[in-house]
Amino acid sequence: MEVINDLLEFNHLKIIQNTEMFSFSLDSVLLPNFVTLNSKVKKIMDIGCGNAPISMILTTKTKAHITAVEYQEKVFSMAKRSIEQNHLEDQIEVVHADIKELYQQIESDTYDTIVCNPPYFPVESSEKKNLSEYKKIARHEFTLNVYDVIKISKKLLKNNGNLAIVHRPERLLDILECMRKNNIEPKKIQLIYPKPGMDANILLIEGTKNGKPGLKVLSPLYTHTKDNEYTEEIKKMFKEN
Amino acid sequence: MEVINDLLEFNHLKIIQNTEMFSFSLDSVLLPNFVTLNSKVKKIMDIGCGNAPISMILTTKTKAHITAVEYQEKVFSMAKRSIEQNHLEDQIEVVHADIKELYQQIESDTYDTIVCNPPYFPVESSEKKNLSEYKKIARHEFTLNVYDVIKISKKLLKNNGNLAIVHRPERLLDILECMRKNNIEPKKIQLIYPKPGMDANILLIEGTKNGKPGLKVLSPLYTHTKDNEYTEEIKKMFKEN
Repeated sequence: MEVINDLLEFNHLKIIQNTEMFSFSLDSVLLPNFVTLNSKVKKIMDIGCGNAPISMILTTKTKAHITAVEYQEKVFSMAKRSIEQNHLEDQIEVVHADIKELYQQIESDTYDTIVCNPPYFPVESSEKKNLSEYKKIARHEFTLNVYDVIKISKKLLKNNGNLAIVHRPERLLDILECMRKNNIEPKKIQLIYPKPGMDANILLIEGTKNGKPGLKVLSPLYTHTKDNEYTEEIKKMFKEN
Repeated sequence: MEVINDLLEFNHLKIIQNTEMFSFSLDSVLLPNFVTLNSKVKKIMDIGCGNAPISMILTTKTKAHITAVEYQEKVFSMAKRSIEQNHLEDQIEVVHADIKELYQQIESDTYDTIVCNPPYFPVESSEKKNLSEYKKIARHEFTLNVYDVIKISKKLLKNNGNLAIVHRPERLLDILECMRKNNIEPKKIQLIYPKPGMDANILLIEGTKNGKPGLKVLSPLYTHTKDNEYTEEIKKMFKEN
């Protein structure tokens, strides 16, 4: 069933979701708060945008034009309708395409910034059997994995442009290695922890095309309190964006 | 001037220091609390032991025999005297040697665990000019750098043995890459932050020789409160070890 949910309280952003496909997650709120944005950023690409929560939150933070690419037609359609409902179609263009084909037709050195919340789980993951087709594609690396995203970014990013990814800490090494191999120098990492005393469960990482070496590990974020409520920092992201 | 300081309150460990050379730092307390220790660990090497704070704290946590290696003769002498004063000479053997030569004579696959607080700063660092010769060698990569330590560990560690290093977060990428190249799979990371809201300033990392991929990012640690006092977690390390 499709439902319309609040995406951000403060900006009254509404997002169309379908729980059989997937819902936007905390990842989508964390990434636009993490990526480096400044007045020089004019063109952003959101790879595998889903129902476009990241792109929509980005509009509260930047005037840059956003190209949001989604492979699954029904999800693309939800993204498009969410964006129209929020009157953001001038700033966000949603494209229904397979980015692995599309990028070959796009000129190199085109985007200032690329953001991506890629599928997390390797295809061999056992849970895939219990998921709908939509969730499979969104969550598993059937059609797109983080290495594709890095390779695509190597071409599409301008010199000194940034690629920001949300992923799992377990994949940190592979992502770091792959970025460096593709001349995207990792510059900024933030680790997100469910609660104090627990291991990190979300990784935010940003690299700069042809950037100089020098990595910063930002202050950690906790998502939940001991009482299983969102922390004030997370609540603030939902409210004040 | 040489002074004798408390190393750990609870165990009444005393350490001989010379402020013109260097003092033991927080790094030395963090590393023995981070490294994986269990009853299978029988032989530990402490590379570049300085005045041996890490080895001495390790004796409060393990019965393993520790070989502590120090290149600088005066520092070696302080380490030896500290260990004797604490009656730890049965558990800790301090060796005055250049590990880069010594390791060639040691049989491969000898140690269960290697710990190291290596010199941090690249040789070109500008501050080196203002330091005494002792501090230069202890803090700068004149005689030993982290890559040497990893290469040495590749030989000296037993299969599935662990290498635990304390270093700077800025070097995370290089350390990860170098470990992997030397078949030491990074398994565990902890980032230490001076205070909430600040970037990490200390990196703890452990890798396993011929280990399976799979990285854990442990819960972060803060060293200081807003009032510039040690946090309870750090105070606990000094007291309860």
